[in-house]
Amino acid sequence: MEQRIYTTEIAAHVGERVRLAGWLHTFRRLGGINFLVLRDARGMAQCVVDAPEAVSALEGFLPETVLAVEGVVVAEPQAPGGVELHAPAFDVLSPVRDPLPFPLNKPEIKASLPVFLDHAVVGLRHPAKRALFRLSAGVMAGFRATLGGLGFTEVQTPKLVASATESGANVFGVDYFGQRAYLAQSPQFYKQIMVGVFERVFEVGPVFRAEPHDTIRHINEYVSLDVEMGFIQDHRDVMAILTAVIRGILEHLQATCSSELAALNVKLPVAPPEFPAIYFPEAQELILKRWGQDCRGEPDLAPQHERWLGQWAMEEHGSDFLFVTGYPMAKRPFYTHPNPADRRYSNSFDLLFRGTELVTGGQRLHLYQDYLDSAAARGYTNLAPFETYFEAFKHGMPPHGGFAIGLERFLMQLLGLDNVRLATLFPRDLNRLTP
Amino acid sequence: MEQRIYTTEIAAHVGERVRLAGWLHTFRRLGGINFLVLRDARGMAQCVVDAPEAVSALEGFLPETVLAVEGVVVAEPQAPGGVELHAPAFDVLSPVRDPLPFPLNKPEIKASLPVFLDHAVVGLRHPAKRALFRLSAGVMAGFRATLGGLGFTEVQTPKLVASATESGANVFGVDYFGQRAYLAQSPQFYKQIMVGVFERVFEVGPVFRAEPHDTIRHINEYVSLDVEMGFIQDHRDVMAILTAVIRGILEHLQATCSSELAALNVKLPVAPPEFPAIYFPEAQELILKRWGQDCRGEPDLAPQHERWLGQWAMEEHGSDFLFVTGYPMAKRPFYTHPNPADRRYSNSFDLLFRGTELVTGGQRLHLYQDYLDSAAARGYTNLAPFETYFEAFKHGMPPHGGFAIGLERFLMQLLGLDNVRLATLFPRDLNRLTP
Repeated sequence: MEQRIYTTEIAAHVGERVRLAGWLHTFRRLGGINFLVLRDARGMAQCVVDAPEAVSALEGFLPETVLAVEGVVVAEPQAPGGVELHAPAFDVLSPVRDPLPFPLNKPEIKASLPVFLDHAVVGLRHPAKRALFRLSAGVMAGFRATLGGLGFTEVQTPKLVASATESGANVFGVDYFGQRAYLAQSPQFYKQIMVGVFERVFEVGPVFRAEPHDTIRHINEYVSLDVEMGFIQDHRDVMAILTAVIRGILEHLQATCSSELAALNVKLPVAPPEFPAIYFPEAQELILKRWGQDCRGEPDLAPQHERWLGQWAMEEHGSDFLFVTGYPMAKRPFYTHPNPADRRYSNSFDLLFRGTELVTGGQRLHLYQDYLDSAAARGYTNLAPFETYFEAFKHGMPPHGGFAIGLERFLMQLLGLDNVRLATLFPRDLNRLTP
Repeated sequence: MEQRIYTTEIAAHVGERVRLAGWLHTFRRLGGINFLVLRDARGMAQCVVDAPEAVSALEGFLPETVLAVEGVVVAEPQAPGGVELHAPAFDVLSPVRDPLPFPLNKPEIKASLPVFLDHAVVGLRHPAKRALFRLSAGVMAGFRATLGGLGFTEVQTPKLVASATESGANVFGVDYFGQRAYLAQSPQFYKQIMVGVFERVFEVGPVFRAEPHDTIRHINEYVSLDVEMGFIQDHRDVMAILTAVIRGILEHLQATCSSELAALNVKLPVAPPEFPAIYFPEAQELILKRWGQDCRGEPDLAPQHERWLGQWAMEEHGSDFLFVTGYPMAKRPFYTHPNPADRRYSNSFDLLFRGTELVTGGQRLHLYQDYLDSAAARGYTNLAPFETYFEAFKHGMPPHGGFAIGLERFLMQLLGLDNVRLATLFPRDLNRLTP
């Protein structure tokens, strides 16, 4: 028996007998010739079937039947990729008796989102879906490769935690041997703690948000790409690393996923060596001056304002990315470092990608007393849940900061998807726990 | 201000003024000279302090005070690494007022395991702990790099699942918007499903086991390194990939973590290009013949027998690794593929590492009808929880198989640790949910 090769490799074997294996994508008669298209993980191959008994066998097979096919590779300018298989012989590896919930052999899946998600187990086999999740893997690989090169160490921190410290309302409760536990909303506290060990750390892992929001941008479990780093001057050092990470991911995609980018018609964003940045109150002034809308004094930017700023960043700075720095302290978590020059504002930032928030980050408090003061100022009366977190600061932590990128939202914005669920293999939301 | 450099870089700067930053590891007077040892993420530097005001300031600082230090690098054969800093000037970045729960500046932490774990937030800063978790990061990186090179695609599958399908007794329940959800025990079903998309997949992520076992080898949340691959002949193709993965990880550690391996005195295991393999009933025969213990008919190997087999593998085959293949079907999950030549036994395997089970894997069923039959044979009356899993097989799945490596157990066995909790940053067990 021949060694199996991939469909994408046959052009190098013209005149040879090869063995392919994959899924029956289509079988059809076109101008009196019978074409079988076999799909594997990397691509497709066209096979021309002449023998009447082969034709009648294939007519009995439903799409997604798993086949091994042996035949001779022939150059044929009209075939996709310029080659096809002749005189193929088949082995059925897995027969199929049930029709698909929707066809996988059309350029697009024609099914509503709920129907697609209900049948994602097979729907994800569609070549366009497969390409999308290859890009997702590429984003993770580019993230890690860039950070590894910058001296960051990967950590894995617990997802089961004893208390709902970051924001009590939005956590899932777990029965833990008769105790109450919670699912971690983020690795925030742990990644800060680990700055005390490695100085520079990252984590790729699931986070859980019990937010009862049913929107195109919310899912309740997602993959967070987390970074934290010590011995910074301020948030601008963190922004420089984030810029390197975004550029590193995009370069990695270009280098390793060119066929997926082409198949999905993705135009990679413009990411200059230094992303433009605007200070929050100055962004509000700009919005007043240029678009006539007075939002000064508001603690946050409206989505519409973010879109304007995104346009402005492209027009003025030729960048798909824009940092907005210095968000008001009132809207940031208690561990946020204030701007020492104006303590109403923070040393934090959002990164807008084409006018939509993609990343949040900033400098954190690092002095133990500052944590006690901040907790007191926010009216936290029970500090017991913070005890081990605060222990790190009690014993000396350097100035530090970090950020988190939502993997699915990055993909959603990169590909211009209209729902984050399309960037998630098996999304979890208010109404969906399966498949 | 000088650019900060790492302590490990100063030897290249003899005669220059440099800026270091890190933690006050020790300060002591030795033979009339005052030595400050500063620790950063990569190593330590010795600073000689003469100025009386500097000495009295340093005498007031507790260990773990975060300092920036500027001084001139001087070659000094008696100093660790042959260089030290003279005439240093200090900035205190974070003062410390509380003594440590145990010293971090001794060669080993002298604390009981519970005390260490209670204070892991600072205990992990100890250089030996830091080295250990750098190796952990190296294992993950080596795992991914090897599989990436073999055409595997990374996936991220949900940790919140609707049903406790693999083994109902051992899952954690979650309140999911008024519904009952569970934490995934493994990505088993999802990684198999994804073989239909990518053929070859891997995942690195947390798994959750609600097993109420209080042993040195059990934790209730751990990191699983999961692999699954399609279009195999049988389990031996999976074993070949696992062999490549183990060897790839070890090579990666050697290439990227040599100082950590040296610091922890780790002897990397002998991993020949092909690991020896023994068929389960033959292993039982060998145990009878060689050690006089008759365990034929038993469905599993006792830990003592695994240790004997580990010794045998080293003596006979010069390998720290040994595959035991063909475990009885009765002891394997319902998706296990039987040995077609003798259906009492399975096409599955364990990989023993120095006589202790490290990896479990094998060929899975791939035909829809086989799943229905296996579920029926096991007495599963309610197939609703399997509906979406079985949907993948209904629509054509190739012969496939895979394996899972527990990250913490691998590290435990590699380093000869006496408790898996020591290979876990923040372990979760029957009695521990913090830090």
